[in-house]
Amino acid sequence: MQVAVLAHELFPERAKTAVGLLRYGDHEVRAVLDRDNAGGRVADHLPDVQDAPIVASMADVPEVDALVVGVAPIGGEFDESWRPDVRAALERGSHVLAGLHDFLAEDDEFAELAAEHGGRLVDLRKPPENLTVADGTAGDVEATVVTTVGTDCSTGKMTTAFELRDAARERGLDAAVVPTGQTGVVIEGWGIVIDRVISDYAAGAVERLVETPVGMDLIVVEGQGALVHPAYSGVTTSILHGSAPDALVMCHEAGREVVHGYESFDLPPPGAYADLYERMAAPVAEAPVVAGTLNTRGLDDDAAADAVAAYGDAIDAPATDPVRHGIPEDVLEAIL
Amino acid sequence: MQVAVLAHELFPERAKTAVGLLRYGDHEVRAVLDRDNAGGRVADHLPDVQDAPIVASMADVPEVDALVVGVAPIGGEFDESWRPDVRAALERGSHVLAGLHDFLAEDDEFAELAAEHGGRLVDLRKPPENLTVADGTAGDVEATVVTTVGTDCSTGKMTTAFELRDAARERGLDAAVVPTGQTGVVIEGWGIVIDRVISDYAAGAVERLVETPVGMDLIVVEGQGALVHPAYSGVTTSILHGSAPDALVMCHEAGREVVHGYESFDLPPPGAYADLYERMAAPVAEAPVVAGTLNTRGLDDDAAADAVAAYGDAIDAPATDPVRHGIPEDVLEAIL
Repeated sequence: MQVAVLAHELFPERAKTAVGLLRYGDHEVRAVLDRDNAGGRVADHLPDVQDAPIVASMADVPEVDALVVGVAPIGGEFDESWRPDVRAALERGSHVLAGLHDFLAEDDEFAELAAEHGGRLVDLRKPPENLTVADGTAGDVEATVVTTVGTDCSTGKMTTAFELRDAARERGLDAAVVPTGQTGVVIEGWGIVIDRVISDYAAGAVERLVETPVGMDLIVVEGQGALVHPAYSGVTTSILHGSAPDALVMCHEAGREVVHGYESFDLPPPGAYADLYERMAAPVAEAPVVAGTLNTRGLDDDAAADAVAAYGDAIDAPATDPVRHGIPEDVLEAIL
Repeated sequence: MQVAVLAHELFPERAKTAVGLLRYGDHEVRAVLDRDNAGGRVADHLPDVQDAPIVASMADVPEVDALVVGVAPIGGEFDESWRPDVRAALERGSHVLAGLHDFLAEDDEFAELAAEHGGRLVDLRKPPENLTVADGTAGDVEATVVTTVGTDCSTGKMTTAFELRDAARERGLDAAVVPTGQTGVVIEGWGIVIDRVISDYAAGAVERLVETPVGMDLIVVEGQGALVHPAYSGVTTSILHGSAPDALVMCHEAGREVVHGYESFDLPPPGAYADLYERMAAPVAEAPVVAGTLNTRGLDDDAAADAVAAYGDAIDAPATDPVRHGIPEDVLEAIL
């Protein structure tokens, strides 16, 4: 599929979906929409993903099959400043895909334009209608199941999942990511956005996802939130228990000591945090933290190497920054 | 309000909502519908709650304002065998209240009958439309906030919450229960059924509830599920962190060693379970397990006393069976 990705004013740092699509997706990205960076190219910002021009609006986008909303504001509301581009895409007959809390299909103008011009409105955050409570059966999956967990939101759980998948594939293994968030679902084309599922069915939805890929050696479940996050810990716990993993990989950002956006709450130190994940998992699934990944974006190379080493010591497991250093052999060995 | 309570084939043991209404609610219960026990009276089964006749169908029910569905099957589906009674209640112009997953208002026949005869269909499990993510502010509530937590489902979390409230009121304190499940919401006439809220907003919904009662000395939050339950742990964790309690009261059933309905999963021993609750709560709210309640329903008096003592020792806190022994002074002191 050929797509344009909407990321106004947020590309690349705060456009996780857009960057994920460029890095891990099978779609050909023909343009990124960001009116603040128009005229440049993706490669000016990100050297190691597929390149595309950055444009100001749909008027500058070549023929595409779909416009994908590539940003995820807190709360997931639709930003009215995006309306002209969504309208333009629909008027061209393109599909529009989004993972927002606000469903595009419930917007009367968009619904009418889609019906008139033949495009589809795809709300990837909308869960299936037929979910149920968990049966407690995810532990029976034959593949090795690894769940990525975090010390906070935005610590690299999705990135880690895709990098582990790619490293396993390079070794010739059959590996899949189970996407549980809007970006992962857009990239993979399947999955369920767990934070949108009613609490009663959240673990059941994860269980269903984990039981979906067949014939895999390795399934990496994308975690969400953090175990002691003031707002999102319920989502995290549903994924932890619903996925019944064999092992955990804990993702952290170097230097982060308080919960992002909730700065009055301290993060537990990484060693204690890993211990808490293991204790919480154990009654449902014995799942040690076998490796860690550290986002060292803010550090220079020496400091990053030191931080990764210190993080590995703290959690007593091999560690890496998957973006800066890739997945080394000891991390891959630890999860298999 | 004068009500009839539907509990076909399940009263009283498996009709938690019906029994809760009879014991803690302000409504006058004029009849309980249970075709298996018709002809008897509530007092034949439960000596310590308000009495009412048990009848076979709505045909035998005197004038009431509402029919309340007083049973909660796993999964929350509407049982088609209830349809004639719901139909009869609506044809009499009564309201019908339920806390099922299946919404009565979405049933075409019921919606038509309600519109025709002037009764309302009240789906208490339907959450408000305007929920948001948690702000992390519940810890600022001035009242002492105590959350009841469980080692499993159906261990007495709601009963404990109401008994603690009543004990505090007897001492002259202003005390309120924050209802988080369908029975509590029916009894109190407000609240949010948290397991029906999308995961992203579950902690935010609890936060809103805890910030609702004003001028209270004590707020007791009704917990749900269990912290390491294979299906419901996400709900539990959202309530634990969203309520930001000052203390926890842990509820257990004597002799229960595996998760009910998920018997391949062992419960952690009570002492370890209490420790895990405290560790999970601490980064958001320091909330020690200050007391325990034990459901000793299956035991004789001597065995019950021994079991309560052993449970208190295991969790290193005062304990009681609130139904059998009430709330003793040491338990009330511990939570205040």
